[in-house]
Amino acid sequence: MSGSQGAAGLFVTFEGIDGSGKSTQARMLAADLRAAGHDVVLTREPGGSPGAEDIRRLVLEGDPDRWSAETEILLFTAARRDHLERTIAPALAAGQIVICDRFADSTRMYQGLSRGDLRGLVDQLHGLMIGREPDLTLLIDMDPGTGLARAKGRQGSEERFEDFGQHLQEQMRAGFLALADEFADRIAVIDGTRDMDLVAADVRRTVEARL
Amino acid sequence: MSGSQGAAGLFVTFEGIDGSGKSTQARMLAADLRAAGHDVVLTREPGGSPGAEDIRRLVLEGDPDRWSAETEILLFTAARRDHLERTIAPALAAGQIVICDRFADSTRMYQGLSRGDLRGLVDQLHGLMIGREPDLTLLIDMDPGTGLARAKGRQGSEERFEDFGQHLQEQMRAGFLALADEFADRIAVIDGTRDMDLVAADVRRTVEARL
Repeated sequence: MSGSQGAAGLFVTFEGIDGSGKSTQARMLAADLRAAGHDVVLTREPGGSPGAEDIRRLVLEGDPDRWSAETEILLFTAARRDHLERTIAPALAAGQIVICDRFADSTRMYQGLSRGDLRGLVDQLHGLMIGREPDLTLLIDMDPGTGLARAKGRQGSEERFEDFGQHLQEQMRAGFLALADEFADRIAVIDGTRDMDLVAADVRRTVEARL
Repeated sequence: MSGSQGAAGLFVTFEGIDGSGKSTQARMLAADLRAAGHDVVLTREPGGSPGAEDIRRLVLEGDPDRWSAETEILLFTAARRDHLERTIAPALAAGQIVICDRFADSTRMYQGLSRGDLRGLVDQLHGLMIGREPDLTLLIDMDPGTGLARAKGRQGSEERFEDFGQHLQEQMRAGFLALADEFADRIAVIDGTRDMDLVAADVRRTVEARL
């Protein structure tokens, strides 16, 4: 899949703790870029292609202990492979801008940190079966107290990843910031505590610098 | 998972081309060993645990081109990991004999050979996420003409792996025999063209030598 990297299009992902506003920012960026005449595909993970959405349901519905951490990582990787092959890579090859709400950094964080120290396994599996990294990742950063209050204000049936409590959210925030250090060439940290229009303007400036 | 290897129980798998009689032989071996007082778990792949059966349905139902070869390998590996964790490893730890109709050798053959040269990828994924090999594998060997005639005589909705035609079945047979050379310490080749009771007696002798 790496053959298409840099050839055309731009692959932008959003990451952040729950309630950080990243999904809202992804939608606002897609709308802004479309208004500016760009051809944009807005997608999300887990899911983003018909097969990956089927796998998403298999993973997220039912008992949280239904799958071990290792099996869950394999299922997320299968979904990501399908999403990459069927949605992301074709759009990039056609010169489109792909905006994806969560990607491999979420797996590095949530499976690597929250369910045991599996970061090494996540990385090996990613290297073997996915390979592709985003051209640009926007980490919408926020203190967990603010993020948690926002997440609790929403309705949703898939609350598994939002039911971690503030201490774990603080670990997640620190983990995302550590990823931003590790992948400093592609991850931009955006202060998400400001008014959403100010955040969106910051996001758009960061993306336009890469276009 | 390899911690349980050799500690207790015996992990026996059956492999072979479609129509070779391996499923019948697996059932006959289970019945024979139970009659002799052994505690036996008879299982199969893909599937063999509730989660793995769900993944099996996701892979085998629907359009054969629904998944790429790589995504299919990831899904089969996820199913195998679940099957190993939930069914095989606990049974072996309890000292039971596990008899499994197909295991990783089938993935090495069918995904490795029939859908492109992915054997290396299959092996790397197996090493990373599965690790465990059977203690003994019985390869029920048969010329494809005989096997194909038997397979066509059966009814079944999951015919994807049985619709390859005789030439590909010949490649599969050669591939399984090559695996038997590669893993000569655990794969026993059994002549499956004989009367099923003679084959069963041969199978039982081979297994009893490992008990």
